[in-house]
Amino acid sequence: MTGSTVRFGTGATREVGFDFADRGVKRVLVVVDPHVRDAYPGQTATESLRTAGVDFEVFDEVRCEPTDTSFQKAANLYATWPAPFREYVNPTLGRGTTPPGPLKPLIAVPTTAGTGSETTAVAVFDFEEEGVKTGIANRYLRPTLGILDPENTRTTPPAVAASAGLDVLSHALESYTARHFLRREKPENPSLRTAYQGANPISDVWAIESLRIVAQFLPRVFADADDDEARGMMLLGASYAGMGFGNAGVHLPHAMAYPVAGLVRDYRPPGFLTDHAMVPHGTSVIVHTPAVCRWTAPSAPRKHLLAAEALGAEIRGVPEEKAGELLAERVRHFMTLTEQPSGIGDFGYSAADIPKLVEGTLVQARLLKLAPHDVDAEILANLFADSLS
Amino acid sequence: MTGSTVRFGTGATREVGFDFADRGVKRVLVVVDPHVRDAYPGQTATESLRTAGVDFEVFDEVRCEPTDTSFQKAANLYATWPAPFREYVNPTLGRGTTPPGPLKPLIAVPTTAGTGSETTAVAVFDFEEEGVKTGIANRYLRPTLGILDPENTRTTPPAVAASAGLDVLSHALESYTARHFLRREKPENPSLRTAYQGANPISDVWAIESLRIVAQFLPRVFADADDDEARGMMLLGASYAGMGFGNAGVHLPHAMAYPVAGLVRDYRPPGFLTDHAMVPHGTSVIVHTPAVCRWTAPSAPRKHLLAAEALGAEIRGVPEEKAGELLAERVRHFMTLTEQPSGIGDFGYSAADIPKLVEGTLVQARLLKLAPHDVDAEILANLFADSLS
Ligand SMILES: [Fe+2]
Ligand SMILES: [Fe+2]
Repeated sequence: MTGSTVRFGTGATREVGFDFADRGVKRVLVVVDPHVRDAYPGQTATESLRTAGVDFEVFDEVRCEPTDTSFQKAANLYATWPAPFREYVNPTLGRGTTPPGPLKPLIAVPTTAGTGSETTAVAVFDFEEEGVKTGIANRYLRPTLGILDPENTRTTPPAVAASAGLDVLSHALESYTARHFLRREKPENPSLRTAYQGANPISDVWAIESLRIVAQFLPRVFADADDDEARGMMLLGASYAGMGFGNAGVHLPHAMAYPVAGLVRDYRPPGFLTDHAMVPHGTSVIVHTPAVCRWTAPSAPRKHLLAAEALGAEIRGVPEEKAGELLAERVRHFMTLTEQPSGIGDFGYSAADIPKLVEGTLVQARLLKLAPHDVDAEILANLFADSLS
Repeated sequence: MTGSTVRFGTGATREVGFDFADRGVKRVLVVVDPHVRDAYPGQTATESLRTAGVDFEVFDEVRCEPTDTSFQKAANLYATWPAPFREYVNPTLGRGTTPPGPLKPLIAVPTTAGTGSETTAVAVFDFEEEGVKTGIANRYLRPTLGILDPENTRTTPPAVAASAGLDVLSHALESYTARHFLRREKPENPSLRTAYQGANPISDVWAIESLRIVAQFLPRVFADADDDEARGMMLLGASYAGMGFGNAGVHLPHAMAYPVAGLVRDYRPPGFLTDHAMVPHGTSVIVHTPAVCRWTAPSAPRKHLLAAEALGAEIRGVPEEKAGELLAERVRHFMTLTEQPSGIGDFGYSAADIPKLVEGTLVQARLLKLAPHDVDAEILANLFADSLS
């Protein structure tokens, strides 16, 4: 387990300038979403850089759901260790090379409680010329510091908070139900060991804790963006889930989400400020989670019951054969409560689209290997059929 | 919260050579206890260095409870950034300077499940010319990697496992009951923020989880050193508690333990291989924990009940006024079960010694500030009196 370093607290964004100065940094690139540039997160961060006497430039042309061309988390990688784009991209599309050493300091300041990318060493993007989602994953991508400031999520629209929060839920569940680390192959030497190691005692602690947080606080942030405690806890929950899945991995709901998000033609999510057709990441993941739970439950029924309990279900007297259904029901409960689409049918897909969605999932070999059972095209087709609605 | 990086698994010590080679290290100093040099831990580590082609020298003159002269964890600090000894020592005995940059790679391989020092940035020693325990604490002291290999604790004598395991218990309890981070003063700038931040949501997760582990697995390792699962879980528990207290801090049981261990004249702990009078660290701490629990409980009765529950107590129907007593009783339960001394009287102290023990505790300002209530000489004298037996 690789540790992540975070600072949590109201107003923590005001310290970002000192943090850079303290590391001897003279000049910073501020990468910011245009919608938060002039709001508290962007204003506070740049003001703090000014106070600390750190020179900076602002880049605000980022895109909700990044593509290879808009891909900014990786800027630090390519600026520090220049290489052709595919050099660091995950195989088989790229060469998956680990850079020769650490990158320049990167401080990540999340403005949604979702991806947990302030704690992980993975960056995901749409590879447009290949028509698939893929990513870059190596130990040097983990940010130097994550700043968890509940003030930064005060203006997150409810629909965005919902989708991001359900991403947290699925990160936690997927890492908790992933193939056990002792059931994975031992690499020839430790440096070949991948970041995604399978479910393990450390990631399980974070997974269960973040499920409890989502169950308690996602309904509260969705109902009231001014609930300070709930916003803070959801930021922590997102980071906790990141510390878990960043070491254990995610599996089918994410693997299936990638073609679903990548092939969408004209879905525009209600409540999002976006100028292009898209399925928000958390939404594209969570629509698969109930069907996948039912399929994974026989691999570890007791863990599925404990996950349902962490999500608020009463599990006393529930037989192990019902674990998958009970857990799926709890996930659906939070989907309904946050007004999510009921399945991929809502994005415009029908049974006729399943073969190409299966094909787009089978290329995500890195994630498929983490499912607790072996996966094939037929299994995936059934799971997509179960996820239509 | 600063993250720690650990690898857990049977046989993980066999990878230590690759780990150094992978970091470009050509030559290693192996610092090892003479009692484990020729057993599995020492043999496996050196064999792994040989296989990986990493040159090394062995230093085995370490001492159980290190002094300033035998102090080896700090060797990396003084070798990387040479300075007079007191430069890095905590104020007021030293200057508490933070070194200008990272140290050379340090891989920590615990052979007891106790201190959790593979995850913390603190090194403690007996400053013999000053007659007190103190330490060095700065962010660069945190090991690069901790290797948690259950094979390394197979030959730990039961008395050593007991004392070490109760150190884990107290680390968890002290960090959980420490002054809340929002009740501490905000530093002028983030680089002045100390490693010990007070109880916080992240350290609480680790604290509760390690209490659960100690309650379940300490009795098992004490009864049967061949219980593989229990040894593995205790190593994890020690690291979890370290990740918690390494960021939150410890308070009175540790502050009181320092003079008790430092001033001991002729106590020789049964079951330890040692050539000098000493109180094993975990034992010197845990004898104070019950009295301290009763005193801290009114600051956060609900948390004290939850800690008792994590240690196996039934808390339904227990009123908050009973929280301290219930928790103290659970701690005493594990002390009795592992055949610990009942108090500092067993080490040869009597009421007449209390004034000098109080004096030796009052200099531990860094730890006293973390107690949930303010502390003075009278309070300490009462706590020592309650800890005689
Ligand atoms: Fe995700
Ligand atoms: Fe300790």
